[in-house]
Amino acid sequence: MILIAERINGMFTDVKQAIADKDKKVIQDLAKRQTEAGAAYLDVNVGTAAADQEGTMEWLVESIQETCSTPLCLDSQKPGVIAGGLKVINPENGVLLNSTPLNKKSDEEVFDKYIEMADQVGPKANLIALTMDKNGVPQDTDTRVAIAAEIVSKAMEKGFDPQRLFIDPIVLPVKVPNAQVQPTNILAAMDQIKYLADPAPHMTVGLSNLSQGASERSLINRIFLAMAMSHGLDSAIADVFDTALVNAVATAEMLMNKQIYSDSFLKVYKSANK
Amino acid sequence: MILIAERINGMFTDVKQAIADKDKKVIQDLAKRQTEAGAAYLDVNVGTAAADQEGTMEWLVESIQETCSTPLCLDSQKPGVIAGGLKVINPENGVLLNSTPLNKKSDEEVFDKYIEMADQVGPKANLIALTMDKNGVPQDTDTRVAIAAEIVSKAMEKGFDPQRLFIDPIVLPVKVPNAQVQPTNILAAMDQIKYLADPAPHMTVGLSNLSQGASERSLINRIFLAMAMSHGLDSAIADVFDTALVNAVATAEMLMNKQIYSDSFLKVYKSANK
Repeated sequence: MILIAERINGMFTDVKQAIADKDKKVIQDLAKRQTEAGAAYLDVNVGTAAADQEGTMEWLVESIQETCSTPLCLDSQKPGVIAGGLKVINPENGVLLNSTPLNKKSDEEVFDKYIEMADQVGPKANLIALTMDKNGVPQDTDTRVAIAAEIVSKAMEKGFDPQRLFIDPIVLPVKVPNAQVQPTNILAAMDQIKYLADPAPHMTVGLSNLSQGASERSLINRIFLAMAMSHGLDSAIADVFDTALVNAVATAEMLMNKQIYSDSFLKVYKSANK
Repeated sequence: MILIAERINGMFTDVKQAIADKDKKVIQDLAKRQTEAGAAYLDVNVGTAAADQEGTMEWLVESIQETCSTPLCLDSQKPGVIAGGLKVINPENGVLLNSTPLNKKSDEEVFDKYIEMADQVGPKANLIALTMDKNGVPQDTDTRVAIAAEIVSKAMEKGFDPQRLFIDPIVLPVKVPNAQVQPTNILAAMDQIKYLADPAPHMTVGLSNLSQGASERSLINRIFLAMAMSHGLDSAIADVFDTALVNAVATAEMLMNKQIYSDSFLKVYKSANK
C-alpha cells in the first residue's frame, strides 16, 4: 500500500500557523514523523490562507527536503502552485503531481499540461488523475470508468507509462445527502479500472474526505480502505498517525497475500514500511 | 448481515462443563446475551466430549427454546445429531442446518438427505452447504464456484428455493502454511457465487476459523469480514460479543448503503438488530 501522508496541509491549524511564521521546524517534524509512520509520499498543500501560494509551496518543499528524502506529493488545484514546488524539487526522490481532471468546464486540456509538467521533471514524476471531466464529479460507476479509460488512453498516446498514473475515482463524504450510494459505485469502478492497462495503473483516494464531518471517522476510513484494497486500491492519501488505520492496512495486505502471515505481522509491516 | 452467534459450542470450556452438569442456566444465559448482541441465529454444537451427542443436541435445543425464540443453527458433521435437534425444534422460529458438503468421498449423496431433512421441518428451515465434495476442500476459486453451482442447481431440481441456501466457501486458517492464498480465492469465488441465482443464495463463512491459532484474531476477523461483505457475503458464524467486529459490520453496512448514514449509525445498527 502506497500511503500518502496528509498532514502537511495549510488547512490544519498548526501548518497554517507555521506557514504564517515561516517556522520550518513544525513542517520538518511532521515530515520526519509521517515518514517514520510509514508514509511513501508526503502530501504538501499550502491551504488557502497564504497570499503567495507558489512561493509558499516552494518554501515547504525546500524545508522538507532539508530534513528527509521522502518523495513529495504536490497538492494544489492550481498548476502554477505545483510548478512552484517543481522548481525546487529533487527529481531523484520521485514526486507525485496532485492532481488533474481529464478536462475542465472550459474544455481546456489540462491533463496534457500535467503530463508535460511531469515529463519535464523526469521518469520518477507520477501523476494523480481524477475521474472528473467538464461535467464535474460523476455519481455513477460507468462514467467513472469511462473517464479513467480516457485518462489511460491519453497517457499512452503521450508515451506516459500508465504505471505512473494514480487514478482517483473521488470519494465523497458519506454524510452528504445523496452521496450515500457512492462507496459501492467506487468499489465497482475499481473492479474495472484495474483492468484498463497491464500492468494496472495505480489507484488512489483522498480517504479522509469519505468521513468528513462524520462521527467515527477513523472507523469509517479503515473499513472502507480494507474493502477498497480487496477491489484493487493500492494507494491512499490518509492519516498515517492513525495506528488503527495502519494496522488495518497491514492486516488487509496479509489477507491479500502481499505479506506472509507471521505472529508479528503488524510489526513486520511497520518496520518494512519505515 | 445475518450473524450466527458461535458461543454455544461444546468446544468452549464453559459449555462443555454445562453439558456435563446438565446446567441449563449457562446455556440459556449465552442464548439471551448473544441474542441481545445482535445474533440472527444461535449456532448449537455439542462438541466432541458428550457420549450421547444426539441426546445432548436435543437437550440444548430444548433448554434454549425455554428462554428465547431466536432461530437456531444446528451444527454437526453427523446428520443424526442434527436430526436429534430437529425432533424438538419449534419450526415457527426458523432453523439453519449446519452443514452439508455436496457429496462425500464414498459418493454418498448427503446433500439430498439434508434437503429432505430441511423440507420435513418446513419452509423456514434453511441449509448451510459447503463448497466441498468427495475430493475435500478445494484450494482454488474455480472449483469452489463449480461446486457452488452444482449445489444451487441440485437445490432447484429438488424445488428447494436457492434463497434457503447459505453457501459456505470455507475459509481456512491464515496461519496454516500454503493456505496463505486462500482469502483472495474466497473473495473471488464470492464475486461469482452471488450471480448463481437471482435473487442470490446467501453466503456464509465460519469466520473465526480464519484466525485460528493466529495473533490479532479480532483484527484479522473483522478486516476480512469487511472485505468479504463488499464481495457479497451476507452472513457469518462469528463472535457477536466482539464489539469491534459488530462495529465493523455496522460500518460496512452503512458504506454498502444497507443503512443510511446518521451520526449515531453504530447505535442504530445495534438497536435494529436486537
